[in-house]
Parts: sequence; C-alpha cells; structure tokens
Amino acid sequence: MRQTSVLDDLLSAITDNRLFRERRRPKRISRADLAAMLAALYSGQGEASSTERAEEFLRAYRDLDSAGRTFVYRTLATDYGPEPDALAAAAKAYLDKPSETNAKALQVAAEPRRVEIFRRLNLVQGGTQALVAMRLELFARLANHPELWTVDDDLRRLFQAWFNRGFLLLREIDWQTSAAILEKIIRYEAVHEIQDWEDLRRRIDVPDRRLFGFFHPRLGDEPLIFVEVALTEDVPTAIEPILTDKREPIDPQAATTAVFYSISNCQDGLRGISFGSFLIKQVADDLARELPNLKTFVTLSPVPGFAQWLREEAARPTSAVDEPTRLLLDSLDGPDWLDDPALAKAAETALTPLIAYYLTEAKDARGRPADPVARFHLGNGARLEQINFAADRAPGALATAHGYMVNYRYILSDVERNHEAFVNEGKVACINAVSRLTRGVKVAERDAAAGPKQLPPPAAEKANAAAS
Amino acid sequence: MRQTSVLDDLLSAITDNRLFRERRRPKRISRADLAAMLAALYSGQGEASSTERAEEFLRAYRDLDSAGRTFVYRTLATDYGPEPDALAAAAKAYLDKPSETNAKALQVAAEPRRVEIFRRLNLVQGGTQALVAMRLELFARLANHPELWTVDDDLRRLFQAWFNRGFLLLREIDWQTSAAILEKIIRYEAVHEIQDWEDLRRRIDVPDRRLFGFFHPRLGDEPLIFVEVALTEDVPTAIEPILTDKREPIDPQAATTAVFYSISNCQDGLRGISFGSFLIKQVADDLARELPNLKTFVTLSPVPGFAQWLREEAARPTSAVDEPTRLLLDSLDGPDWLDDPALAKAAETALTPLIAYYLTEAKDARGRPADPVARFHLGNGARLEQINFAADRAPGALATAHGYMVNYRYILSDVERNHEAFVNEGKVACINAVSRLTRGVKVAERDAAAGPKQLPPPAAEKANAAAS
Amino acid sequence: MRQTSVLDDLLSAITDNRLFRERRRPKRISRADLAAMLAALYSGQGEASSTERAEEFLRAYRDLDSAGRTFVYRTLATDYGPEPDALAAAAKAYLDKPSETNAKALQVAAEPRRVEIFRRLNLVQGGTQALVAMRLELFARLANHPELWTVDDDLRRLFQAWFNRGFLLLREIDWQTSAAILEKIIRYEAVHEIQDWEDLRRRIDVPDRRLFGFFHPRLGDEPLIFVEVALTEDVPTAIEPILTDKREPIDPQAATTAVFYSISNCQDGLRGISFGSFLIKQVADDLARELPNLKTFVTLSPVPGFAQWLREEAARPTSAVDEPTRLLLDSLDGPDWLDDPALAKAAETALTPLIAYYLTEAKDARGRPADPVARFHLGNGARLEQINFAADRAPGALATAHGYMVNYRYILSDVERNHEAFVNEGKVACINAVSRLTRGVKVAERDAAAGPKQLPPPAAEKANAAAS
Amino acid sequence: MRQTSVLDDLLSAITDNRLFRERRRPKRISRADLAAMLAALYSGQGEASSTERAEEFLRAYRDLDSAGRTFVYRTLATDYGPEPDALAAAAKAYLDKPSETNAKALQVAAEPRRVEIFRRLNLVQGGTQALVAMRLELFARLANHPELWTVDDDLRRLFQAWFNRGFLLLREIDWQTSAAILEKIIRYEAVHEIQDWEDLRRRIDVPDRRLFGFFHPRLGDEPLIFVEVALTEDVPTAIEPILTDKREPIDPQAATTAVFYSISNCQDGLRGISFGSFLIKQVADDLARELPNLKTFVTLSPVPGFAQWLREEAARPTSAVDEPTRLLLDSLDGPDWLDDPALAKAAETALTPLIAYYLTEAKDARGRPADPVARFHLGNGARLEQINFAADRAPGALATAHGYMVNYRYILSDVERNHEAFVNEGKVACINAVSRLTRGVKVAERDAAAGPKQLPPPAAEKANAAAS
Repeated sequence: MRQTSVLDDLLSAITDNRLFRERRRPKRISRADLAAMLAALYSGQGEASSTERAEEFLRAYRDLDSAGRTFVYRTLATDYGPEPDALAAAAKAYLDKPSETNAKALQVAAEPRRVEIFRRLNLVQGGTQALVAMRLELFARLANHPELWTVDDDLRRLFQAWFNRGFLLLREIDWQTSAAILEKIIRYEAVHEIQDWEDLRRRIDVPDRRLFGFFHPRLGDEPLIFVEVALTEDVPTAIEPILTDKREPIDPQAATTAVFYSISNCQDGLRGISFGSFLIKQVADDLARELPNLKTFVTLSPVPGFAQWLREEAARPTSAVDEPTRLLLDSLDGPDWLDDPALAKAAETALTPLIAYYLTEAKDARGRPADPVARFHLGNGARLEQINFAADRAPGALATAHGYMVNYRYILSDVERNHEAFVNEGKVACINAVSRLTRGVKVAERDAAAGPKQLPPPAAEKANAAAS
Repeated sequence: MRQTSVLDDLLSAITDNRLFRERRRPKRISRADLAAMLAALYSGQGEASSTERAEEFLRAYRDLDSAGRTFVYRTLATDYGPEPDALAAAAKAYLDKPSETNAKALQVAAEPRRVEIFRRLNLVQGGTQALVAMRLELFARLANHPELWTVDDDLRRLFQAWFNRGFLLLREIDWQTSAAILEKIIRYEAVHEIQDWEDLRRRIDVPDRRLFGFFHPRLGDEPLIFVEVALTEDVPTAIEPILTDKREPIDPQAATTAVFYSISNCQDGLRGISFGSFLIKQVADDLARELPNLKTFVTLSPVPGFAQWLREEAARPTSAVDEPTRLLLDSLDGPDWLDDPALAKAAETALTPLIAYYLTEAKDARGRPADPVARFHLGNGARLEQINFAADRAPGALATAHGYMVNYRYILSDVERNHEAFVNEGKVACINAVSRLTRGVKVAERDAAAGPKQLPPPAAEKANAAAS
Repeated sequence: MRQTSVLDDLLSAITDNRLFRERRRPKRISRADLAAMLAALYSGQGEASSTERAEEFLRAYRDLDSAGRTFVYRTLATDYGPEPDALAAAAKAYLDKPSETNAKALQVAAEPRRVEIFRRLNLVQGGTQALVAMRLELFARLANHPELWTVDDDLRRLFQAWFNRGFLLLREIDWQTSAAILEKIIRYEAVHEIQDWEDLRRRIDVPDRRLFGFFHPRLGDEPLIFVEVALTEDVPTAIEPILTDKREPIDPQAATTAVFYSISNCQDGLRGISFGSFLIKQVADDLARELPNLKTFVTLSPVPGFAQWLREEAARPTSAVDEPTRLLLDSLDGPDWLDDPALAKAAETALTPLIAYYLTEAKDARGRPADPVARFHLGNGARLEQINFAADRAPGALATAHGYMVNYRYILSDVERNHEAFVNEGKVACINAVSRLTRGVKVAERDAAAGPKQLPPPAAEKANAAAS
Repeated sequence: MRQTSVLDDLLSAITDNRLFRERRRPKRISRADLAAMLAALYSGQGEASSTERAEEFLRAYRDLDSAGRTFVYRTLATDYGPEPDALAAAAKAYLDKPSETNAKALQVAAEPRRVEIFRRLNLVQGGTQALVAMRLELFARLANHPELWTVDDDLRRLFQAWFNRGFLLLREIDWQTSAAILEKIIRYEAVHEIQDWEDLRRRIDVPDRRLFGFFHPRLGDEPLIFVEVALTEDVPTAIEPILTDKREPIDPQAATTAVFYSISNCQDGLRGISFGSFLIKQVADDLARELPNLKTFVTLSPVPGFAQWLREEAARPTSAVDEPTRLLLDSLDGPDWLDDPALAKAAETALTPLIAYYLTEAKDARGRPADPVARFHLGNGARLEQINFAADRAPGALATAHGYMVNYRYILSDVERNHEAFVNEGKVACINAVSRLTRGVKVAERDAAAGPKQLPPPAAEKANAAAS
C-alpha cells in the first residue's frame, strides 16, 4: 500500500547510516517504557537533550507494531491535552476579570501539552517528515478512535505554521532534475497517470511542456504539490491531444495559452493545508513574465462528482433528470458507447445542460459547489469557461464524469473579484454560454437538506488530492 | 544607529525592483486608511488575495513615520486580541463541561486575532524579515507603551514555531563565502570587534580558525547567530594570542582543543528564541568528526556582569568585599593599572576568589547565575573550567570584568547530566580548583530580596546578544 | 543507429532556441558555397567575427546530406594541409641551418591549416560537441576515403590537448543526479547492459554500489567514461551475484573489496584518447579515503578475445590446443552446455590453462597482450589475479569467452612497478597460481609473423570501448 | 612584488594539505637530480605514473631558488627541443617526397619534446596554474637569456589550445560573489585602482554598475580578464562622475548607454592570448538582452601612449607640434595646471587636434595604431567616437595622456565591417568630428622608419594589460 511505503521512506530518513544494521532487529518496547519516553520528552528542559530524547523516541516508534503506535496516539490524546485544573482556573480568572493578561494566561493554559512534544520531535533531522508520516497513520485510526481528532487538529495547526506559503520553494521540474525527485513525480501524479520514464519525459523534456512544484526546506526531495502545464495555441477540448506521444512540440514563444492540465497533492499527511491556489497563481505569474505572448490561462479539469450526482439526482422523485435521459444513462455503462455516433450525440445533448447545472447550481451540505474540483478553482477566483464532451475516454473519467472535462479560466485581473463574490455571495463565475446551458434544466423546488449529499470523506479527499 | 539600518535593509528587501523609483516619494496615509488595511488583511478569505493585501500593507508601513507605526501596534494590541465575548462564552462552556471539544474551542477562541494578520504578512516575499524588523520597532515602544507586550508575545510565539531549530541551516563561513554574508559577520560580531576585511580574513581564511552560523531559509543571507572557533594545542588563557595578526597558524590535524572564542546573536528581533545551545553542540559534533584529534571543547568567554556586581557588593554594609579590596578597586579605574606589577598582583589575589564566588554563587532574582554568559553556558551543560586574570585588556573588558575571562568546558558526555543538575537543583558545574577559590569569601547571611539585583533589561539583553 | 542519434543530439546542442523553427527547412548549399565558407573561416582575422562564421558553418553542416559532409572532409584533407611551398622552404632552411629559430619556423609551417579551422569551430557554444560528433562521421568514411586519415589525426591531437586529464571532472553518479545524465549512463553502458531505470537504480541507489564518471566542462551532461563499482566482502568470481535484484545490500563500512565490474567509454569520437587509467586510479584513491576498511581493488572483467583466439589457435598445425580439446570446443557452441555437469567439468579442465596462456603469453602484432581488456589493465599496472570459470552466462560472454571472466587487481603500491615492467620488458604481472596454470600448455616455436593476428580494428575498438 | 606573490599563491595551490608542514623545510636539490627528474617526466610511459612524477617535479620546483629555476628553463630550451637528427631526416624525406604522410611525420618530428613535459605537468591538480606561473618567471629571464624564447613560444601555443575561448566561463561578479574572487578583483584592477572593499562595493553592489569576468575551469577563482560597466543616460566625458561615491544610482531600466570604463587582464602568464574582444562582445550581447533600452555601447578609455609620443614628436626637426605648443608642453608638467583656466583652454586648443592625429594617424613599426588601447578597440571593430579633455585628473593619467580620455563605440552591426577594414586596409574608424580635428595638423613627409617608435615591450605590455 502506498501510504506504508511513504511512511517507511520518511521514517527511514530519520535513521541515518549509524543505524544501518540496527534497523533489522526491532526491539520490543513495553507500554510503560513508551509512556515514560513521552513523559521525558515533554518534561525535559534542555534543548540539546531534547534532541536526543526525540531521536530515541522516533527510533522506538519506528520499531513499534500497529497496536503500539495506536497506544502512542491514545496516550497523546488522553494524557497530553491542556492541564484541566490549570485551564479551569485560567477560564475562571478570565471570566472574573477579562484583562489582556488573563486572556494571555488562558491562551497559554489552553494549548495542549502534546504540542510541545511535537515541537521537540521537529528538532531532529527528519523530524518534520516523521510528523507528516505520523499524521497519516493517525488518519487511519480516526474511524475506530474518533477521540484522536484533537491530536490531528493539533498537528494540522502546527503544520499550518511550519508550511506557511512563505516557507515554500517553487521549483521547475525538468530533465535536469534529479531522478530522486522525478520518481516521486511519477508516483504522486494522481490525475493522468504517468506510465513510465518515457511518459514523464514527454511532459517535462519538450519545449512546450512545463512542470512546477512546491517544496519545503525540511522535506528535501519530497514535493508538496505540483502542476503540469501545456503551452498551446488554443484552449484544449480534450486530454488526449495533450498526452499523446504523436504530437509535434510547438515553439513556446508562439504559444498563447497555458493549460494547467494536472494538479497533484503529494503529501496526504498535510491534508487540510492548501497550496494549490498559490501554486497556480505563482506559475501563471512566472510564465507570463517569461513568455509575453501568453494571454490565456486555463485548466483542463476532471469533473469527479458528476456521474454520482447524476445517479442520485435521477433517483429522486422530482428530478432535474427527465425520463428519456434516465433511460439513456443505462446505455452509458460500457466502455465503447462513445464510438456509437447516434448514442454519443444523444448523450451530449442530454447531459451537457445537466453538467452545466451540476457545476453551477449543485451545492454540498455547506453550500459550496458540490464538485470538489469546481470548488477548488472557483474558490480560487477562476471562472467556468467551457464544457467539453468526450474529452477524456479513460475508464476512470468515463465512470466518474461520462467522459466530460471542463476548462476553468484564470483571468488575473478578475481573480480577486470572482473570489470575493464566490466567498461572500456563493456566486459561481461562468461565461454566458455556460449559464445559458442550464436554462433548460427544470428542477422542482426542494429544501437544501434534501439536496445532493456531500461526497463521503474518503472519496472527497481523493478527489481533492487530484484537484484540477 | 544599527537597528534602523537593519530595519531599512530588511524592509527594502520587501520592495523589489518594480518599486525602485517609487521608494523615494512616500505617500501620506491616514489613520483611518491604516485601520481599514488591517481590517481587510484580517478578514479577507482568499489566500491569493491575502498576498496582495499583505504587500500593500507592508509598502504602506514602510512609508509611515514613527507615530504612524505606533498607531499600527496600538491598533493590533487593542482591536486584534481574542474576541472578548467569544472567549468568555468558550470559557463558560468549558467550565460547565470540561470536554476535549470545549477545550479545543477555548483554545481557538483564546488565540489573538492579530496572529492571523502576522501569518498573512508572512505569506509575501520578504514577509518574515519584515516581521522580525517590526518586532525590533515594537521593543523600542515597550517602555512608553507597556500594553504592547502581548503583541510582542504573539510574535515571539510565532517566531518560535517558524525558527524551530529543525528549520535552521548550519553553514561554515570562510573566504569562499559571499561578500554579502561576510559583511554581515563584520557588522554583527559583538564580542571581539572585527576591524576590517583583513581582520575578518585572519579569522576565517587560515587553517586553524573556523566560523559557523545558523541561517534560516526565509532570511537569506542574514545569519541568526554565529560562533568563531580557534583550533589550538592548549586551553587559552587570554584573547590576544588568538586575535593577533602576528601568529603562525598550526596544522588543524595537530590541534587538540577547539576554542569557542566568540558567539554573536545577530537578530535582535528574535530575542527570546535561543539558538546558541544547538549551535555549540552541532559545531562540536561536526569538528569532532572532521578532526579526530580534538579532545577538548572550551570557550574563552567574557564575564560581562562582574565589575558591576562587585561595585554593588562592595557598597553593601555586610559584604563579601573586605575593606582593603574596596580601596584597591578605586585604583582599577584607569586603563593602565595592569602594567603596574604590584598592583596587578594585588588585584589578582583579591579579585580571583571574588569572581569565582560571583560566577558560582551570585544569583539573579529568578535564582539563576547572575552573570548572563555564565547562565548561558552553565545552562547548556558546560562546566566552569578556568578563571583567567588579565585575559582581555580591551577597554570594554577592563570596565565590565577588570580584564578577566573564563573558560567554560563542554564535555560531551557530561553535558546532559550537568544540564539536569543545573535546571533541577540550581547546581553550577565547576572544577574543584575553582570551587576551592570561593572558600575564602565570607559573606554574612542576608535574604534573597536584598541579594544582587538582576541587571536592568537593556544591559542584560546586550550581554546576552554577545553571550560567549 | 546509435552514432547517428548521438550526432544529432550533439549537433542540436549547437542550434539554440533562436533556431527553433528554422531547423525544419534545411537549405540547399552548393559545393562552391561550402568551399567559400571554409575559406572565410580560415582566413578571417577577427576573433569575434570568427564566432559568427563558425556558427554559420555549423548550421550549414547540420543541414548537409552525407555527400555534402564527405565533400567537407575531402576539402579539409586536400586544401588545408600544411602549405606545401612554405613547408618545403622551411624544411630546406632547417637543413641548411638547424637552428632553434629554423626549427620553430618548421614547426609552424608543418601545422596543417585545417587545425586553425577546428580551433575556430571550437569557439562557439557547442563547438566542442560538434567536433567530437564530426570525428565520428569521419571514422565512417575512412574505409572508403583512406586519405582522410590526416584529418582524423589532426582532430585527435587537438582533442588530446583539450581533453587533457587536468580538465576532466570526476563526478559521482547517484540517484540525486539529473535524469539527463542518467539516461546517458543507461545508453552508454557497454559491458553489462542496463535494462531500465529500475536496473540502473540497483546500481546507483544502494549503499554498496557506486558509479563514477569523468566529464568535461565543454561537453556538459555527456560523460566521457564511467566505471561501476560494487563494494563486497570477497573478490567476486561471477557477475550474476553482483547484478541480481535478489541480494541484500551490505553496510559499505563493512566492505573490504571494491570491484570495478564495468567500465564504459562513452564518446566514440574521442577514440584514441585514454581516460580509463586515470579514472580507476582516482576512484580507488577516493574510495580508500572514504572507506578505510577497503583493502582490495579488483576488476571483474570480460575476456573478449579468448574464443576467437582459441578458434584460430585450434586451426593451426602446431597448436597449443590438443586434439581432445579441439573436439570439445564443438560442444560449446550452444547456450546450455554449462548445465551439463560433466561437460562443464571437462571444459573447465581443458580451457582454464589455455585462457591463462592466452592472457599471459598471446601477443598482438605490436607485441602487446592480444586481449584488449588485458592490455588495458596490465598496461595500467594491475596484475592478473584470478580466472573465473562460468562467471558470465550471458550469450555474448559465452560466445566471446566461453563464459570466463577474470579479476585484475590494482595494488596501489605495485602499480608503478608493474607498469614499468610491462612497458619496458613486456612483462605481465600475474600471481603464481595463474602462471602455474600455463605450464601445461605446450606450443611449438613459431615466428611472430605467424602468431595470433591482431583483432581487426572495428571489433578491437568495440572491445576497447567496453574495456573492463 | 606582485608577480612573486601570484606565483607563490599559484604554486601553493599545488601543494595540498598533506604538505602543510613540509613546506617550511625546503630541500636542496642538485642540478643532476633536476635533470633526471625532467628526463623521467619526459620518458615515463604510464599516464598514471606521470602524475606522480609531475607532482614530484612541481614540489621540487617550488623549493628551488632563482638559479635553480633558471637551470630548469635552460635545460628545457637546450635539451628538449625537437630531436635534431629525426627532424633533419623528416625534413629530407619531405623534400624528397612531399606526401601527406611525410608532411605529418615532419609535423610530429618538429614538435619540441618539452611540449610533452608541459602536457604532463598539466595532468596534476594545480598543474595549469603552475605552468601559468612558470611562464611569468620565464618572462623575467628573457632579457638575460634570449635563447629561452622558444620555450615561451611553446607555452604560449599550449595555452592557446587550453584557453580557447570555448573553454572560458563568463561570470557576473557582484556582492554575492565569494570574497576569494573579490579580493582578486581588487588586486588585479589595473586601470582605475580599487581603494578598498567599500570602493569595490560601489562598483558591483549598486543597480547601475556591473562587473563581468572570464574564468577557466582549471584556474578556479582566478579571473583571466574582467570588465567594469556603468549604465548611464549619456556617453560620459570624464571618469570622476563614474567613480565618485557621491552619486545617486539610476534605475538600470532607464539606462540607454553601457560604458566599459575599465578592462583588466589578470594573468600576465597568459600574455599573448587575447580575451578582451570576446569579453566585450559577449557582455554587450548579454546586457542588450537583459536591458532592451540600452542602445549605445562605448568605452571610456585611457590614451596611455599620447604624452610620450607627443614628447618624441615635439623633438623631431619636422614635427606636427608647432613651436607655441612645444613651449606650452613645458607648462603641463605639474599636477595643477588644469586649475588655471587660461592654461587649460590653451592646452585643449593645441592638444586636441594632436591627440586626434595621434590616435588616427600615428602607427607603430608594424603599421598598426601606435596607441595600444586604440589598437585593441579599433582592432575589435569599434570606432573612435569622442575625445575628452580633462577627463582623468589622476596623476598617472596626467603623466601619460595630459588628462585626456576617449570613447570608443561598439556598434554591433558595424563591428565586423570596421574590423575587416582595419585589418585589410589599416583603416581607422572614427566619426567625422574626430577626423576633421586632424586636418589642422601639418606634418612634413617622412619615411616610416623614422616614424614614431613602438613603445618598448615592457611598457607596452603593461598598457595592454590595462587596455580600455
């Protein structure tokens, strides 16, 4: 499983060469010893000695089985929250006298003690990686141990400070980049799989293709997120002409359009900390400076929630999906229906207004666009520009979006305004041609509670990891 | 004045070339506009637009006069603490039901709102420098505006997260280093002033001298702290033979001793965030690995609080300073008394037990060693190894320490034990020869409150900045 | 074909982005124009304008067809040798008065004029690569145009100056190296083919494998030669345990032996300029410094000429190969004979003395060891250490060496002595066990002229390109 | 003396740390041993062992006194020229049959044997530096030992191959550059002395000043040549406004003119190998690309030979210098004559036509412009643009050029044509305003032999070293 190998990779980075042989004979560690190690790590006062205790703990952690690791998280949750008596006293004092001093004392008392443990683990070489990897393991336990959520929340807050955009490095990835980084690009690409090194090469070693990623000084060769860009002469309407190995590259100076055709988050352990918006904005800025002929910045994005929404919508008593379309949907299950011209034509006619409606009108439980990729780009201030039928014939895209893809467009001067309208008024930016499409869709009134359900978390997370 | 120029340097880093000409015509900004900018910075929800607002605010700040800057800090203090009603409600809820959920809600409510503003300022290119520079300006206002202390505390906590030792880079500084960094070394050396580039060269471009510094990815060429090391064949008893331009370098492979003869903190804006302990430990480790013949790691350190303590002690009714010594002290004011052999001999006999007493017994109001440099090294787990009379004849050293210097020794295997004993029992590690010296010092009992006062903050701070 | 793609790669490096579109419409260039371009290139006196003429010529050359290129080489051969009258005059003057001045004038007159043309081509970006690529094309024409040999000789002499070992850079190649370099390693490995990126990774991204190459500042990412090293606990007797993907890496600190198991020359255009001896020596030095436990430096090398020599030897009337062995040889043609224990045993018994004899006694027409790999390592001062039966079961190794491999050992303190004895006395260094093996081989006296013929140039060259 | 220290620097680079202590006890080496070392170095056949012999020789050389070094050069001159018998035989063979083969054999026989020694010395770490340093020492001996000229010529030819422009690296030098390089810039600046690090900073750490140098991979931090550039809004007429510390920098984007105000050759040991033409051309190209508003590329150059030429001219019976001017010249000896307005006016009126005449008409013995700086820039294809009176008041400039400076202008599209006209027809490119100036100058006809003598070599060399 991928996460395990990431975890092992990251943890092995902690254990440098001195530990080379040691690694193979894991030691048994008692629960009491683990608890004592955490206590020492928390209470020790010298910074330098903290380092040794942190290394010792991480080595012990590395050798733990799954139950041992669960014990660690549960101990952090139960024994290392804020000190209850101190917090109650500080709360009382503030209520008695709501001064700045008492507010500050309350802030201090409210910080969970485990935060200090995490800070100390971050002191050692490899500590940041280890904590990112540990948060991944925490996720895996949340279903059975919901009380661990506060531990997760503490880590997320720390990561938000440590992975502040100001600390990230933008790097262009090309054929001069090290194999160590490139193999991670191959592994992490989540939208349009990279088959092998030759496929990678077609994406980074030709004049009209670019790849940029954010890195963090402490995670070394590990990308946080990356975006793949095609330089073209038109806004693309399908993915195949971009990925094919049979095309001729164009002169980048002649390109008018930069297409963000794939964005992949790489570190599941950093879930909830968002980098994509900055990445797109900075890449667009840099490209515009390098290539003054670039005028249009668009994505070519999947619509991961469309097919599921359509199924659910079709099943409703009062539905945006009329009877003929409902019947049509049954014909779209197989892989080859796009090859039947009549069927394809019928599907395009029936579904295009519905996907337009889905993208602009369907909302999740929090009132945001139901589609996670739409949510991401519209939230960034892009506008919905174009809906492309039969744009991705890969089985995954057929199953989740009946082969549709869409272009979101970033107009740099409008991004701020779109973003504000989206956040404050829930307004989706889209061009008239798209909004006109939705007019044919008739839906009976219904209350929000009965509206399309939010995607269940794991799927949403996955879609988010591949937001483009 | 140094701080101003640092500030200007740092702030000018924010304003890149596009602003080249603009810089010269500062615009007047009204208080209302400033307040609105802060409000927009706090409330804006898009990450990308935050960046623009942060840049806009920093440009405005750069053009403010002193009163305008004070206005900014006061607004942050009064309008951007935790939201009082929300905090009170959260405090009440926790007291009613001290659950994890309520504790977390209380933690969230207790975070001052200005912290979010600082996080957003950190998003932009140059943001970290700007915040470090702003904290310097905040210090300058604390005396007249004591209510600003919470703003300072918030910045300190953020810096503690951002400047976690895990994010620091250790770099060796030598003649291959850029002039941009070297000039900062010249400027920041606070213990033994570097006269010019030739003097610098004698400290970094000879085989038996080394210089190491910590850097942070976001501060670029700005060192945080650096240490100068001499490789010698003996523990040194004076500074002149180390700094002289008339010595022959030795083969580093033949050296047995690494002398940390100067440690300088460079960023006053990072006051309260300690790097020295890590630096010494890591440099000692690296040198030990590179030069296996190195067996002894010592400092050659100033005693910045001795003369002042002695004056105060001598003025007490029941004092450790006897009458003849009191008279002798009056003879030590001029610059040349060390050249009078009889006087020098008398001073050495009288003062050496007193300085041993000062270093090992005199405490500050918080029960820690009164001398800031002693506090630093003993707190790191070093032991007081040797007291050197007439070790530094520079006017500053004569004025603050009657020319004394001391060696603190780092024995890597004892550091942890010494540190624990120091923290838990207040025990000062020193060799017998030193503790024997103090036996001759007789002091009548007196209560702690009447004990030697803590150095007033500015002086203490300065001494700390040059802790070695 | 490989050479063509190398050539295109190299020449395309000349043509930078400005030429991007131009590249697709090759222009026809007349013979007269080509001749005029060469003349202008030779006669132009300004250095700066030489650059433009050189670029212009290289662009023209790039667009030439094969006949056009042949015309260029023939023109260089016939029209740009030394100026005959001037050379004759200088020769006469020297014979009249053999002074230093006349010797110098003769030296100047004897330099072919094309050398100046080559120097000027080297001025431009990509010029060195172009000349290396052009020499490759020259080789291809030597068979039909033997008069071009002097042009080749001129290039070789220039390359000898430009690729002086002092200008080479040794780089360690590992997983941090750029994909651009790694793909060349995959392409150029000539001894034990690298299947794919995973196979490469097994050779450079494990603790007990290393790869080092020589690079030249002007050839960028193009390696000149590289060597692959395995760190082991014993002298290996077969290649499979080194290349297998089923082994566990060892701790490099525990290794006692460095095995040079593959050496590949990469630039056929630099034929005749030898780098291997320096590479082995420098890598051995560097490894010995890094890993003090390394005591033994050996190769695991092919014997590319053995099978052919054996066939020729067996065909002689008075031969070292006796009748039973002659018959046995016919059984060794298929791929599986090593799986027949009796046959394998018989082959080992019969062939091992013969290969020992071949390696130590068989000479080429110039009196050097007949085997090119033996010639290389013995000439470097290594000694023949061990002969390994059934050491390489790959079809190529079975065909050229009946599966044998040998170890040559570099004992750093003996290298000089061995080398001198080899050069001055033709003495082959080998351990007694090997020389004892040869005693059983009886060969009637015969004259040198009838001795084993030297391998024909192309094959020899190929073997040399993969000398290990 | 400067050269000695350069030599010691360079030679000490050969002797790495292993030799640290050894360096202080030079060993006496007999003449016979020296001769034997040279013989071994020449005759040894193994490349690897060559390295050891070369190191051994260079260590020995380093410890030699001046007479010992002279012995080395004389031995190289007398014993290591071409082998006389072989050369005579080859010359005869060629005269008998002037075939390509015999021409090649003659070329081989004509190469002095010492060239192989130099190639082998170049094999070792630091070898190139050592040879460059040795050529410097050779220069110092040429006056007393004219027979050494062939040795010098051999080195020059080798350097021409090794320092081919294709191998040079252009680097921009700024405040991010290492102190090791910057101190060399300070030391080598030969035209307008750099006072100290602050002066240097004014030339490289402001937005409207640039400094570029050529480096060679083998000489590490040693620049070969560098040029200082000022970005301005006008063609400058004096040096002081460029060098002053009292100016405000301008925005480089607003600059229209790039002024090459100082060019310094750094390696006297590379005398005769010209880099300046390439440097100017490449820097002009790079700046034009970076700053599209730059339209004008000019120098601000000294006229180092004017005063001497004027003295000699004035002393002739039929002279371009009339009587009043002759008298005037006597008033221009002191330092302050420019402060006397009447005198200054008279000098300008009288001398400006003469300097125009000197620059455009006066020739050296080989028919080239008499002034070395004029020769350099006109030879590069620049044109004489402007003559500036009272442009440099430094004592040196007053003594050599009566304070005049001139601008040579590089018009990229004319460079080629100017250069050809200069080389083929001896035509000096200058604007009409300048050529008109010369009309007033009347000189009686005289033959070339009686013309102004070429500057004696050492002075010419120095002027060339500072050609700008």
